[in-house]
Amino acid sequence: MIAATREVTLETKGDGDVLDLTAQVTGFVAQSGVATGLVAVTVIGSTAGITTIEYEPGLVDDLRKAFERVAPSGVAYAHDNRWGDGNGHAHVRAAMLGPSVTLPVVQGKVVLGTWQQVVLVDFDTRPRTRVVVVQVLGEQRRRLPPLVRA
Amino acid sequence: MIAATREVTLETKGDGDVLDLTAQVTGFVAQSGVATGLVAVTVIGSTAGITTIEYEPGLVDDLRKAFERVAPSGVAYAHDNRWGDGNGHAHVRAAMLGPSVTLPVVQGKVVLGTWQQVVLVDFDTRPRTRVVVVQVLGEQRRRLPPLVRA
Amino acid sequence: MIAATREVTLETKGDGDVLDLTAQVTGFVAQSGVATGLVAVTVIGSTAGITTIEYEPGLVDDLRKAFERVAPSGVAYAHDNRWGDGNGHAHVRAAMLGPSVTLPVVQGKVVLGTWQQVVLVDFDTRPRTRVVVVQVLGEQRRRLPPLVRA
Repeated sequence: MIAATREVTLETKGDGDVLDLTAQVTGFVAQSGVATGLVAVTVIGSTAGITTIEYEPGLVDDLRKAFERVAPSGVAYAHDNRWGDGNGHAHVRAAMLGPSVTLPVVQGKVVLGTWQQVVLVDFDTRPRTRVVVVQVLGEQRRRLPPLVRA
Repeated sequence: MIAATREVTLETKGDGDVLDLTAQVTGFVAQSGVATGLVAVTVIGSTAGITTIEYEPGLVDDLRKAFERVAPSGVAYAHDNRWGDGNGHAHVRAAMLGPSVTLPVVQGKVVLGTWQQVVLVDFDTRPRTRVVVVQVLGEQRRRLPPLVRA
Repeated sequence: MIAATREVTLETKGDGDVLDLTAQVTGFVAQSGVATGLVAVTVIGSTAGITTIEYEPGLVDDLRKAFERVAPSGVAYAHDNRWGDGNGHAHVRAAMLGPSVTLPVVQGKVVLGTWQQVVLVDFDTRPRTRVVVVQVLGEQRRRLPPLVRA
């Protein structure tokens, strides 16, 4: 069995910024030597989340608008009243989206659609440095025996 | 360790169609020989998602209505303005639900409640052929030693 | 490889009650002996979910209000019309949040931010006894060779 960890550090703009992590995830899985297994992509912190989306600027705007319906930035939050952080809506959005996505690894590759990217969504009200953990677990690629010429 | 993959191909009606995958998931886990581990159920593509729900027609309607509040089908989407796809709401709903659910396997069985089914939700605006990957990872069932009669 | 299961039984108040599971999850992972791997935290049942949040009373209220926007308790549900349960909104909220969160285990510890707790959210309309399954899978901690004094 192989279990391997890669930390990826990213600078975001906050406010619903969406960053494409696909190259980092697929690259690390390829390096890890796992043939069949799982990869979990998880963000540390409580004002960001991970999901998959077709990564293009239109959908980044559309996603932000949908979260504005669910947890508007302009209403009162008990969190802000208590702590004065002003990011209550970011916490609620992050909890609803979830901090982690788990994907299958098959024949050494992460299974994703052509128009499906793994993304970090940063809901916080200011630019942040984010740490995303890519964790891969699974069966090692079998090495072929050396070719013997008769 | 066992790591095993099953692809399940399904025909959906789109538009919030919900399909019950429980039999395929529990059946494959039983065949896999995993006693203790994890099973991840993941849909390929960016306009569908996976979750658990009590699978009955009333809740299928109720779930569709809730996603209509979050990402209405009748408002403008930047995705549609750019690409003319007309399925911006489907992409947003799928990103909010997430493409994958991970469940524990205990004593060779997937842990689920009686009224809890694993489902595919297809948000796209037309019927689709979907591929769902069921990935199981874990410890093999121990084989009991042969019974010896004295 | 280690694969280990812990069931945690909890009494909730229902109606959006949020319970902090972090100590149970981190405690079990520490006991399990897993150095590098994954831990999945999953609730059995279809009217509760698992996520991470900064666990403080303000955000518990804020999260409840957000789910009230998405799936209001005061509108008609087809589920309630069919079955008379009165908890259609709880089923819809649980399906949208999801029943499980998967987190990385690195150097024997669950990776979480300082203000990020693993929580159970019970959406049902009455107090419930809930069973949460904590499933850990991964590589064993290497035991150091015995110290040899010359």
